[in-house]
Amino acid sequence: MKLWGGRFEDETGGEFADFNSSLSFDFKLYPYDIEGSRVHAKMLARQDIISESDVEKIISGLDEVESRLDEVEGWQDLPFAAEDIHSLVEGMLKEEIGSTAGKLHTARSRNDQIALDIKLYLRDRGEDLLQELVSLVKKMVEIAADHKKTIMPGYTHLQPAQPITLAHHLLAHSYKFKRDYNLLEDCIKHMDSSPLGSGALAATSFPLDREWTAEALEFSCPTNNSLDAVSNRDFLLEFQNAAVLIMTHLSSISEEIVLWNTAEFNFIEISDRAATGSSIMPQKKNPDIAELIRGKSGRVLGNYNQLAHTLKSLPLAYNKDLQEDKEGLFDTVATLEQVLPVFSKFLGEIEFLPERMKEMAEKGYLNATELADYLAEKGIPFREAHEAAGRAVRYALENELKLEEIELSQLENLLPLSQEDIDETELEKSLEVENAVASRNIKGGPAPEQVAAEIKSLQQWIEKKNKTD
Amino acid sequence: MKLWGGRFEDETGGEFADFNSSLSFDFKLYPYDIEGSRVHAKMLARQDIISESDVEKIISGLDEVESRLDEVEGWQDLPFAAEDIHSLVEGMLKEEIGSTAGKLHTARSRNDQIALDIKLYLRDRGEDLLQELVSLVKKMVEIAADHKKTIMPGYTHLQPAQPITLAHHLLAHSYKFKRDYNLLEDCIKHMDSSPLGSGALAATSFPLDREWTAEALEFSCPTNNSLDAVSNRDFLLEFQNAAVLIMTHLSSISEEIVLWNTAEFNFIEISDRAATGSSIMPQKKNPDIAELIRGKSGRVLGNYNQLAHTLKSLPLAYNKDLQEDKEGLFDTVATLEQVLPVFSKFLGEIEFLPERMKEMAEKGYLNATELADYLAEKGIPFREAHEAAGRAVRYALENELKLEEIELSQLENLLPLSQEDIDETELEKSLEVENAVASRNIKGGPAPEQVAAEIKSLQQWIEKKNKTD
Amino acid sequence: MKLWGGRFEDETGGEFADFNSSLSFDFKLYPYDIEGSRVHAKMLARQDIISESDVEKIISGLDEVESRLDEVEGWQDLPFAAEDIHSLVEGMLKEEIGSTAGKLHTARSRNDQIALDIKLYLRDRGEDLLQELVSLVKKMVEIAADHKKTIMPGYTHLQPAQPITLAHHLLAHSYKFKRDYNLLEDCIKHMDSSPLGSGALAATSFPLDREWTAEALEFSCPTNNSLDAVSNRDFLLEFQNAAVLIMTHLSSISEEIVLWNTAEFNFIEISDRAATGSSIMPQKKNPDIAELIRGKSGRVLGNYNQLAHTLKSLPLAYNKDLQEDKEGLFDTVATLEQVLPVFSKFLGEIEFLPERMKEMAEKGYLNATELADYLAEKGIPFREAHEAAGRAVRYALENELKLEEIELSQLENLLPLSQEDIDETELEKSLEVENAVASRNIKGGPAPEQVAAEIKSLQQWIEKKNKTD
Amino acid sequence: MKLWGGRFEDETGGEFADFNSSLSFDFKLYPYDIEGSRVHAKMLARQDIISESDVEKIISGLDEVESRLDEVEGWQDLPFAAEDIHSLVEGMLKEEIGSTAGKLHTARSRNDQIALDIKLYLRDRGEDLLQELVSLVKKMVEIAADHKKTIMPGYTHLQPAQPITLAHHLLAHSYKFKRDYNLLEDCIKHMDSSPLGSGALAATSFPLDREWTAEALEFSCPTNNSLDAVSNRDFLLEFQNAAVLIMTHLSSISEEIVLWNTAEFNFIEISDRAATGSSIMPQKKNPDIAELIRGKSGRVLGNYNQLAHTLKSLPLAYNKDLQEDKEGLFDTVATLEQVLPVFSKFLGEIEFLPERMKEMAEKGYLNATELADYLAEKGIPFREAHEAAGRAVRYALENELKLEEIELSQLENLLPLSQEDIDETELEKSLEVENAVASRNIKGGPAPEQVAAEIKSLQQWIEKKNKTD
Repeated sequence: MKLWGGRFEDETGGEFADFNSSLSFDFKLYPYDIEGSRVHAKMLARQDIISESDVEKIISGLDEVESRLDEVEGWQDLPFAAEDIHSLVEGMLKEEIGSTAGKLHTARSRNDQIALDIKLYLRDRGEDLLQELVSLVKKMVEIAADHKKTIMPGYTHLQPAQPITLAHHLLAHSYKFKRDYNLLEDCIKHMDSSPLGSGALAATSFPLDREWTAEALEFSCPTNNSLDAVSNRDFLLEFQNAAVLIMTHLSSISEEIVLWNTAEFNFIEISDRAATGSSIMPQKKNPDIAELIRGKSGRVLGNYNQLAHTLKSLPLAYNKDLQEDKEGLFDTVATLEQVLPVFSKFLGEIEFLPERMKEMAEKGYLNATELADYLAEKGIPFREAHEAAGRAVRYALENELKLEEIELSQLENLLPLSQEDIDETELEKSLEVENAVASRNIKGGPAPEQVAAEIKSLQQWIEKKNKTD
Repeated sequence: MKLWGGRFEDETGGEFADFNSSLSFDFKLYPYDIEGSRVHAKMLARQDIISESDVEKIISGLDEVESRLDEVEGWQDLPFAAEDIHSLVEGMLKEEIGSTAGKLHTARSRNDQIALDIKLYLRDRGEDLLQELVSLVKKMVEIAADHKKTIMPGYTHLQPAQPITLAHHLLAHSYKFKRDYNLLEDCIKHMDSSPLGSGALAATSFPLDREWTAEALEFSCPTNNSLDAVSNRDFLLEFQNAAVLIMTHLSSISEEIVLWNTAEFNFIEISDRAATGSSIMPQKKNPDIAELIRGKSGRVLGNYNQLAHTLKSLPLAYNKDLQEDKEGLFDTVATLEQVLPVFSKFLGEIEFLPERMKEMAEKGYLNATELADYLAEKGIPFREAHEAAGRAVRYALENELKLEEIELSQLENLLPLSQEDIDETELEKSLEVENAVASRNIKGGPAPEQVAAEIKSLQQWIEKKNKTD
Repeated sequence: MKLWGGRFEDETGGEFADFNSSLSFDFKLYPYDIEGSRVHAKMLARQDIISESDVEKIISGLDEVESRLDEVEGWQDLPFAAEDIHSLVEGMLKEEIGSTAGKLHTARSRNDQIALDIKLYLRDRGEDLLQELVSLVKKMVEIAADHKKTIMPGYTHLQPAQPITLAHHLLAHSYKFKRDYNLLEDCIKHMDSSPLGSGALAATSFPLDREWTAEALEFSCPTNNSLDAVSNRDFLLEFQNAAVLIMTHLSSISEEIVLWNTAEFNFIEISDRAATGSSIMPQKKNPDIAELIRGKSGRVLGNYNQLAHTLKSLPLAYNKDLQEDKEGLFDTVATLEQVLPVFSKFLGEIEFLPERMKEMAEKGYLNATELADYLAEKGIPFREAHEAAGRAVRYALENELKLEEIELSQLENLLPLSQEDIDETELEKSLEVENAVASRNIKGGPAPEQVAAEIKSLQQWIEKKNKTD
Repeated sequence: MKLWGGRFEDETGGEFADFNSSLSFDFKLYPYDIEGSRVHAKMLARQDIISESDVEKIISGLDEVESRLDEVEGWQDLPFAAEDIHSLVEGMLKEEIGSTAGKLHTARSRNDQIALDIKLYLRDRGEDLLQELVSLVKKMVEIAADHKKTIMPGYTHLQPAQPITLAHHLLAHSYKFKRDYNLLEDCIKHMDSSPLGSGALAATSFPLDREWTAEALEFSCPTNNSLDAVSNRDFLLEFQNAAVLIMTHLSSISEEIVLWNTAEFNFIEISDRAATGSSIMPQKKNPDIAELIRGKSGRVLGNYNQLAHTLKSLPLAYNKDLQEDKEGLFDTVATLEQVLPVFSKFLGEIEFLPERMKEMAEKGYLNATELADYLAEKGIPFREAHEAAGRAVRYALENELKLEEIELSQLENLLPLSQEDIDETELEKSLEVENAVASRNIKGGPAPEQVAAEIKSLQQWIEKKNKTD
């Protein structure tokens, strides 16, 4: 089925036809393509461009075509070769209803058709991906809720920095994925206009009702300019960008899981169900899931670049280069559809080891800031307080002591305070990690009270956004 | 001025200190850094963490520091070497007010400080860039308003496709840049929360009023999680993505300008003011501006990748890798700040040549769709109508005729209509390019009536968004 | 078939096993995987690590497995699910020969196995791609040989600059693809060492003969370090870079073909066989092949980034992230395998239109440099000569003349020469485009004599490199 | 100083001239530009195109110009504004020697000039970078030579896998950088042809001696095609690719250093000289150097993409887009020139902690492969041996034993060997990590003997390549 040819003397050569064909991958757009055709046909009848009986034939023919395509497993099993999904559907429709099929294409072009199809596809899949993001945040918040008092070292530069809790740490990641949700939601909003009726590039002289088709396809409005409508792929790049951020965030938490799972950190134990062995080293238990997800950040950044590079320097309106817009899109969607639920499940297979976490939180002088703050509260400029606390750390390191183990008499030499100005009990208390955490009791801080409030607010958000239950 | 050291026995080696220093580029953040410090100091006093007299000293000291920095031309002229802008400002403040300067850093870290600085910077510059986008759309719409009836060929595959108008073509680009405006505006919204008070990673035990500082700095709210706040660079990638889209859109219209300016197209004449010559070929008049803008799409895609690659696989919270977040940001901002106004001005230096445009619109059988539509309106299925019109084109090509020049007797042989069914006057009229354009009179179409409505709606948008007048 | 598990209590969960599996894409490596296994098994026997009778069993079993896999059409038709191609082959071997199959894995790991497989694969396909590059250059040189005197405008900034010939233009592209050949050939050389025997990461205590297996697999030598051997994917990035350059070069010549095929340039006519029509505009004849190839430059740049991003920050030695090394590789190989022969054939479907090319070469003052050179030869400093020639062009433009049509008396006013110093015949001759081309008779210049010599030298290169005839 | 203008009525507008100017960054090419000019001038005289006295004037003028430019600190201090470095040099030459300066540009264009300048620049800097790579490998090999017997855990999936030595680990990285050396060296070879004489795009009618200028500039030959010569930027992308690989390799070892420096791994101690503190946490000692180098991998990947994107779809020959080829090149060169020596020095500031490394090598059942191999040597198919060793690991884990601590009687239950078949001393010996390392005594393996041989071979390579001593 070829949708053109009157002007041509020769047939397109086989190798060129094969090269040009997009059917092997755009086949998966058939439900969206058919839905668009249904709405277009109905509108043509409403506007008296085709007859009521024609539209009835077309609709029932399209239903038949869709049923047939629902049965097909792979594109190799399609009834005949075609240039693309639009040609296939029109060809199959002709098989069903004869030459009336040819009326469907009145006042429509493959250029506005494909612009519509990919919007319908991405809106549909985008909604699923939003739910997967909600599920992931939900899972993280559930785990966090159990670990509001699980002390762990907070890191900067991967060095022990200040004590935090596991809940606080997991919420940090939750907020990143919540932002991704917003970005993806905005992306879907930004493509909320129907290109149908833009024709090949210059709309059409038929008196279409574009508002009606837009509404029937659940768009807010029709697009404003036909040239823009058929050339616009901005929303795809915007989507790829949202995906890059999702994968960047997954790469970071996956990196942490790989670290926590090392023999050296030993902060977690991954269940046998979710770990992998080695074909040669019998003792191995590898965090393959986390590594593979981290590695998959590459393909999504690759897809971003693929699209941006393809779009560069294209004159208006449609160019064949745009056919390359789909495979990267499908690959990113498939990657996210796979990665997001697998990662949520994977989190459920991780056992955290709080004792080891706390051990490391108590070891690395993470309470040195407490000491500096203690001095600053006594009125010593923070810069001097910091310097003095640093000296105390050096002394403790050299003598293999914890800060709280330095004797008061010695402390006097290290700090800009005389012995009598130091209330030993008060100081000791402020150096305990639980207190250090609890005292950071401001908005955004790790104090269990603050974290509980954030969990509650996130749970409300989840409840509002969750449409899967 | 080094903000740490008590713990260290040896000085950092010179080559390592030089390598680590970011002052040569983050110097330009000084107004934002100082503004953040002012607000932080005031809040410390409001919360009784430092005294009123201290804060007065600090504020007037900061004013002095800012005045001194306003005078500095390049970072080489700064009073002393420092690790970064934060250290420099604190060091200069110490020069002004002595050890009280050390109190400013109470309950604050460079990690929350830099997160704040880049948000303030990007919000500020982002607002300017929004205005530049408005100006660009305004310029395009102004030109479009003069060319609502300027016929030109519309292209797909860079082949003459259907007749449109220059106004319609320019509006297509206008809508692209309007979308960029929305994306950039969303990006600014998405970063509308204050990280100040997040400390190094785990907030602080001092009783800060983060709502107050957020409001004073004109943010909607403080951030929700301290670890997230100091590690979050999502908004920078979101910004780079918006910039990639802006540059992609500029690359397309620049490509068109280069094409239109060829001897072969000859659709435009660039003024001598805006063209460039050759050092060897005396006759050359090159569209350098358009080419260079097109070429600059590369650096922005590069900056996107730079950031995404740097962010990959970083564990929480702050890592030194993040220091690399700034140069790409500054480069993209500088590129847009340069490119957007230059391109707007450049558009004003282009003279369009309507006669030549119309000549080409009448030459390439761009009215073949009209013929097919004419047949379809007579009830012939569009697919057959299309086939027949194709045959007519082939006949016309072979006989070097325009479609409207084919004799009626001949037409009968080519079309599935008998001679008597063809109203010659009606057909001829529908084949005229002006009519072809005027008849495409639906939302988004090139008919002058539709374009006028779109221009009006864009002008209203411009009026609403324009804050420069 | 799972190659591990003794250490595990629970089975890997289905969703995790599916996620981890690479069989759906690494299945295509089976011939290389089996070849590597044959050689490994033979060496084990030579070194008395397994018995001669074992190796005989293994080899005939592997032959059987290979025959069975040769019959399989897609990975869905494989006999059973497996983690990867290595597990599949070992599992099928066990089906054939029982537990002796388990001896094949002695002193080998999937880590050195996959490193070997992708080298064998890429070496094999790389050789084919080298031949495709030779064929492309051959095609271009053949066309060039017919057009040594076909005058066309040479462009800079897409402005007519100086007259050249089509042959000269095509040779420019030929040299680019010849460089690509060298780059790809170097890439294949750079991976010429056998990783077999590197084990999982640390070689093995079995007394392998790595020199023997390297030679048997036609590598120059074994790799030097086992950790490096299993982590090294440099050659894949090097390959992707060569592919980026190939696609960049194809994007440029494709861009030119799209331009030349416009109604405005009209330098070429694409055969009906190789052009494409429109579903709505009957007159369209689109250069889809060129556009699609241009568009495919995106996916290859995407694949480059995919790999580079995945490789970032991986500690030694093998990490699961590396599983992501294959799909981008396969996609780039498939793209080049498709694009290179299609483009060669496409060139054969292009008819060049020399009259139109010459018309444009004579129109745009491309001989202005000749005028400046003429003056410079008279001893006028080139800078002044250039200035004077520019004035002549301006005068000619204003009076709608060609340069050679300016009257001598007028010329005297424009040039820094008196009338008697100008030999009119000589000047006119030097301004003719044929002469302008012929006079550029130095190495690398467009003079037919030079171009003929370059064609000859390229033909010799082609003869030397061509292994397909 | 503008090198054109006769054809123009109006001056280029200031904002457009500023936008077009490249002087602020191409200024640094002046030594290469002047060197090219000297050689060009001499050749012009040799070919009697200009006089001997003219060339003498020009050469001494260029010397003067170079001296003046050597004194200039930044581009802001240049004597006057100019479009680019070529215009600046010609303008300054005119200041020195008057209108004779105008003769230098005979038979030359800025297009072949810039192609030459960047080749000369990159060849020069490339040679330095090659030496930096040699120095880095040298440093690594020196450290390796001291640690041939320093046991450490070898990792896959960041899980303890098999015991290796620090020397073996460092050699793995050494071989990566050695490959980078080869790639960079090839890149320099690939650009070994002189573009001088290619003119703007079509060579020139002056009888230049391109072989002579090529030789004088130490190129092997002149380029073969003038259009190719002025449009070719392949070598820049090839260079950026080599740089991406260098940075990828640095990102990996930097990642390891960050890991080894954690409190949890504790494999190394970075000297105070090379570590950095925190402005708020007095105890911190951060591996900033390693993090920052890891982070800088982003900018180099960015520069690769910048260039590839800019090059896409450019028609022949020169386009202004190519002006964007330089800043990314300069940035990558500067990054490598900074990063490579800093990293070499940084390695010297790292103290390795062998006891801790060995402790971890003995803890994680890294000798389980030894057990499986032990069984395989007894004739048990490796797959069964692996399974049995896995069971032993599970038993040992559950009973908190090392493998070598499992009692013989128990071992019989776990392994497919009866008690009498197990030689306890032999088994124990093979399970000791030193023996496990020493027994991997094949090419590329970690046995000290093998590693010593590799070190020797690397030292010979270093000696051959090292030109800095």
